[in-house]
Amino acid sequence: MTNLAALLSPQSVAVIGASADTTILRGRTLSVMLGHAYVGRLYPVSRSQSEIQGLRAYASIDAVPERVDLALLIIPAAHVPDELERCGRAGVKAALIITSGFAEQNGKNGEGGEEGAAMQQRLRDIATRYDMIVCGPNTEGFVNTAVNLCATFSPVVDALPMTLVPVPLVPPSRTKGQVAVVAQSGGMGFAFFDRGRPKEISFSYIVTTGNEVRLEVFDVVDYLIDEGHTNVFLLFLENIKTATTFRRVADKALRAGKPIIVTKIGHSEAGQRAAASHTAALAGNYDAYQAMFRHYGIVEGHDIEEMVDFAAAFSCYREKLPAGFNVGIGTASGGGGGWMADACAAEGLRIPTLDDATRKLIDAHLPAYGTSQNPVDGTAQAIREIGYSELARLIALSDRVDAVIMVTSARSAEIFKRDRHRLESLARECPKPVLFWSYTSPCDESTRILNEAGFHLFTNLRHCARAAAMLANYRVHRERFLLAAPKIELDVQRAAHVRTALEASALCEYQVYPLLNSYGIQTIGAELAASAHDAVRIAAMMHAPVALKVQSTSIPHKTDARAVALELRDASSIQEAYDRLIRNATQYAPHAKIDGVLVQRMAAPGLEVIVAIRRDELFGPMLMIGLGGVHVEVLRDVVLSPVPVSHEAARELLARLRGCALLNGVRGGNPVDKSALVDLIVRLSQFAIEHGEHFDVLELNPVLVHDAGEGVSIVDALLTTRQ
Amino acid sequence: MTNLAALLSPQSVAVIGASADTTILRGRTLSVMLGHAYVGRLYPVSRSQSEIQGLRAYASIDAVPERVDLALLIIPAAHVPDELERCGRAGVKAALIITSGFAEQNGKNGEGGEEGAAMQQRLRDIATRYDMIVCGPNTEGFVNTAVNLCATFSPVVDALPMTLVPVPLVPPSRTKGQVAVVAQSGGMGFAFFDRGRPKEISFSYIVTTGNEVRLEVFDVVDYLIDEGHTNVFLLFLENIKTATTFRRVADKALRAGKPIIVTKIGHSEAGQRAAASHTAALAGNYDAYQAMFRHYGIVEGHDIEEMVDFAAAFSCYREKLPAGFNVGIGTASGGGGGWMADACAAEGLRIPTLDDATRKLIDAHLPAYGTSQNPVDGTAQAIREIGYSELARLIALSDRVDAVIMVTSARSAEIFKRDRHRLESLARECPKPVLFWSYTSPCDESTRILNEAGFHLFTNLRHCARAAAMLANYRVHRERFLLAAPKIELDVQRAAHVRTALEASALCEYQVYPLLNSYGIQTIGAELAASAHDAVRIAAMMHAPVALKVQSTSIPHKTDARAVALELRDASSIQEAYDRLIRNATQYAPHAKIDGVLVQRMAAPGLEVIVAIRRDELFGPMLMIGLGGVHVEVLRDVVLSPVPVSHEAARELLARLRGCALLNGVRGGNPVDKSALVDLIVRLSQFAIEHGEHFDVLELNPVLVHDAGEGVSIVDALLTTRQ
Repeated sequence: MTNLAALLSPQSVAVIGASADTTILRGRTLSVMLGHAYVGRLYPVSRSQSEIQGLRAYASIDAVPERVDLALLIIPAAHVPDELERCGRAGVKAALIITSGFAEQNGKNGEGGEEGAAMQQRLRDIATRYDMIVCGPNTEGFVNTAVNLCATFSPVVDALPMTLVPVPLVPPSRTKGQVAVVAQSGGMGFAFFDRGRPKEISFSYIVTTGNEVRLEVFDVVDYLIDEGHTNVFLLFLENIKTATTFRRVADKALRAGKPIIVTKIGHSEAGQRAAASHTAALAGNYDAYQAMFRHYGIVEGHDIEEMVDFAAAFSCYREKLPAGFNVGIGTASGGGGGWMADACAAEGLRIPTLDDATRKLIDAHLPAYGTSQNPVDGTAQAIREIGYSELARLIALSDRVDAVIMVTSARSAEIFKRDRHRLESLARECPKPVLFWSYTSPCDESTRILNEAGFHLFTNLRHCARAAAMLANYRVHRERFLLAAPKIELDVQRAAHVRTALEASALCEYQVYPLLNSYGIQTIGAELAASAHDAVRIAAMMHAPVALKVQSTSIPHKTDARAVALELRDASSIQEAYDRLIRNATQYAPHAKIDGVLVQRMAAPGLEVIVAIRRDELFGPMLMIGLGGVHVEVLRDVVLSPVPVSHEAARELLARLRGCALLNGVRGGNPVDKSALVDLIVRLSQFAIEHGEHFDVLELNPVLVHDAGEGVSIVDALLTTRQ
Repeated sequence: MTNLAALLSPQSVAVIGASADTTILRGRTLSVMLGHAYVGRLYPVSRSQSEIQGLRAYASIDAVPERVDLALLIIPAAHVPDELERCGRAGVKAALIITSGFAEQNGKNGEGGEEGAAMQQRLRDIATRYDMIVCGPNTEGFVNTAVNLCATFSPVVDALPMTLVPVPLVPPSRTKGQVAVVAQSGGMGFAFFDRGRPKEISFSYIVTTGNEVRLEVFDVVDYLIDEGHTNVFLLFLENIKTATTFRRVADKALRAGKPIIVTKIGHSEAGQRAAASHTAALAGNYDAYQAMFRHYGIVEGHDIEEMVDFAAAFSCYREKLPAGFNVGIGTASGGGGGWMADACAAEGLRIPTLDDATRKLIDAHLPAYGTSQNPVDGTAQAIREIGYSELARLIALSDRVDAVIMVTSARSAEIFKRDRHRLESLARECPKPVLFWSYTSPCDESTRILNEAGFHLFTNLRHCARAAAMLANYRVHRERFLLAAPKIELDVQRAAHVRTALEASALCEYQVYPLLNSYGIQTIGAELAASAHDAVRIAAMMHAPVALKVQSTSIPHKTDARAVALELRDASSIQEAYDRLIRNATQYAPHAKIDGVLVQRMAAPGLEVIVAIRRDELFGPMLMIGLGGVHVEVLRDVVLSPVPVSHEAARELLARLRGCALLNGVRGGNPVDKSALVDLIVRLSQFAIEHGEHFDVLELNPVLVHDAGEGVSIVDALLTTRQ
């Protein structure tokens, strides 16, 4: 972890390019900083002025009376490299480069791209030379609320009609659950704060990283996990540049129980165009990103409001995550309760009827037209008498629920004002999370009272239901993650042997099988024949129908070359097939070097599955599993995961296939041998973790999964060594 | 259509049960009414007071000095029937029964249900007797903004800090696009207004229907389509009680181009529990509801904010619906533009790069770090210079786009204030819809300026993208709907013949085929054999392998009874099979009457499809299509539609199957005979429309679809006549 204190909590800041004209960014940045009571020292640097916005200004960074922690650069792009060099010489520890016009500049007609990229490379070199922390260029700056530093021109924090963080910070949820925004895009980064602050969310930091010449989003997360003010992260990503940092930091965050909520843009072609011209990010393969996020319990959000609500939910409830997926719903609006029940069910939550003992306690307060089954329709009358807090407390008493959702109308704060103390006790004493949704637009006071008591007030039905599911999922996922550290027993000799084999420029199917065997993966009896006569002899020893397949590294797709024959049962057909396949192969690829013809025992029938490893350019080897044939090709029913995977993780991956019921023997069939399939997956993932950097693709397709107890058969294997 | 003017636009209203105590509902209702300048006359009716809230009160409805249009009843449930009777006698035209405690009362421990239902039945009888319009009971009332009547106790319209509708009503979109809310739930109905009014949406009506003893949601829609103030409908449904009204009104709304946005609660078991105890609604089969909504171009929404935004989009843009699915995006935030592009792509929209001519026009305004490709990153600088309006206008010039989305930050209104007049011209002159999304929380003034110019300001990314897709979809769907009125040529003799057959208590497969044949549906050669010898003789004439199937109405599922044999090729195996099947059938159902054994030519192989008609309890016969085997059973890949369907509609249904690519011959296979399948579907739907009320299920399973030009084969047919 790089210590980013000099950047994010500086004792002193020089603003290079500061101006008195607050209608331009150079002036606005300083005025935004001055608009907050920053606890450190500020030094405007200007070539032309000796006083700016009431502060003494200095002619250059060298003239500033102390070695500042942070220099903020907001000067024309062409001058930035020299100025950064000057900062380096002056011993400045960190630089924030707000100036645009570097690698993001692919320009209106494609011009200027190379020049900008070259200039950005110069910044990187200078930063490396002076070991300087550099954030940007093309960033909108950052905010550190603990020291009231707003090093940004963002209008969002300019003349803010409220304090940067909600006051008082008394309730535990406020100090314990602060949220940091880390975003590549300045506009979006500050938008999270803009939307979240009125909901009484307490933000620790907003950091925008722009082109990320050196400092990347996950470097910032890394630092903030340890720094102490942040427990929840809201990230806006266009890409990840350093996968190793991402993996280390995502692992650390999950272990620390500090949830990360992310949106990753650039899925679509147009989104990629936008990202490339915006912060010079190559957006990459979204499927792999999603697999990585899921692996580390990182929650994906899809718009600002949803993500802000997710962050608020973790902020309030991360220390009382629900133990399961059962929800009790309390309401004074029957329609609202029913709608919430549907929304919860859509998110995979259950809404069980409450137990009789709890119902009895609740019934004591209800008029005849109320109901205590669940949703509990408390009716307006009962809510007026006992408040939302008491109804929530009663519902939470039921062993059948793990979380409570209260459906409220919070446009008036009256009922919450009366309920304030009981709400505070509820937050303190109830071991289960209580979520509040208001179907009317809440007044600020309702939001504040609930937040001060320790509850987030959701204004959106589905966000509330999703948050309840998310909290339960996070707990389950994290507990499993902490348990399941797959053991990696490195067999040095075996690894070296496989490594040597993989160094060949290409491998044939018959050469792949022994490598798999050395990792305990069984393959079907097969032997290479050098002649038709040889093939007949080998087949005779197998006492079963056989397949013949031409083996040549020039013909990886044997079926296309008609170089495969199946179900051969006697000598004459084997002989005939052998000659025909060689003929076909030679015609298909006249100069191919043919190693021979593989004679392989035909496998018994089974459910077709594909198990493969594909190297993702960014994240390295990824495991891919799909049901064969139409499921993969037409329905795209596949799952992805980083490697290695444990047995439990492999089972979960299979369960995520849409057609997973086929493994359990629907359609009158028997359940298939899932254990054998899981074992194969785990072993292949082990192979991938050790050797994944040396091949692009290793595809077992199809793998036939036989009835339970009868194992699996790998019918074909394709390995492409890395180019 | 029932004229509801007496209810919704009354000249005079009696408030029966009015009270001076505004802390109780009886008093609050009158005070809410008095809080708005209702243009008609108000008469409080009270047994104890002669003056209430400044108005003269009357001892009974008979004492009121005129025959009022509307009586509002808010008195204890037990007194409601007698009072309603009194109103009937007094010539009151319409009653609004706010009182709760009728059929919704299944109570905290199941008590009171029957009594409440009986009382509700009395209300229905009285209403029928006096031909009185009755809304409720258990409603929260209604609002008619045109006459300032708020006949409700809803706090949402009490002491409203703004006018009921935005003023001035000058821009055409305001008067042309008013939105009516019609909801079974009072809380939810008024919540739409509560959320929508601050977004400057102009509401014509909010009507809540409660238990719907007589007046149902679609009765209200029916009236409002013609009444003139409403062009967009926002509905909250727990159930539909009268399917014929729904179908007629939904058809009328689509023809009139007055869009309906709906949410239907009660999908989940818990949601159904809530609906039943809330407005006594049985929530029914959601799949069938969804099929009906889709058929009539009714848009489903899933939370209040989304639905309000959809309504606003139709309100502003229903007269300039996009001609296609291509969107141009303009922004000053690269991150926001990229995110919007992803969101649009996720909704099926395309974001093409703009043509060179348009790009040239835009480039003239951009700095080097902007880009005109699409998303167009105008940069903050260009936006400041030319405004959002001019950038939008330029983007809309491109032939490649059908709609424009502008990504903005509207927390400050400065830029919109300067841009006001050009925004108005843009709304007037641009033939394509321009949607605005603000990633920051907009100030009220921004929202107002845009709305006054004729634009809705979206605050949610995905709602904006979905709205753009929805507008295009609505146009396409409506145009197709108006064209495709499937001709129904009733062949009276044929219909009578089938009707007679269906009057039998049950039918066997061999009896179903001739009925299908009479509708032009071809079936495979098949004949009933009375003996093994007979079967051999029939098979011989077929010159092909045959299947034998026992025919008995007691054995509808022949496979379970092992009463089917396939692929029989010679006399001895036919003989053997015949005897075996009869044995199996007799063992399976000892008392079954066996009509004989059907000898059917084996069909050539083909893609398995299921085509069925199932009678939905509410909506009648529904067509169901699915790909056979695993697709239906494991993946639940089926589509539903009301009948009849046109050829085009049948093709669209097939295209909605997840596995529809199989019909086009993926996996190296040939494309199958889609035309023959479509023809079968259309003919079966014709059969269903004529006879669907006389059977519960008619299932052709499987239908084998052969290669293009080779037709389809119906391998089995099951018909269950209606019980």
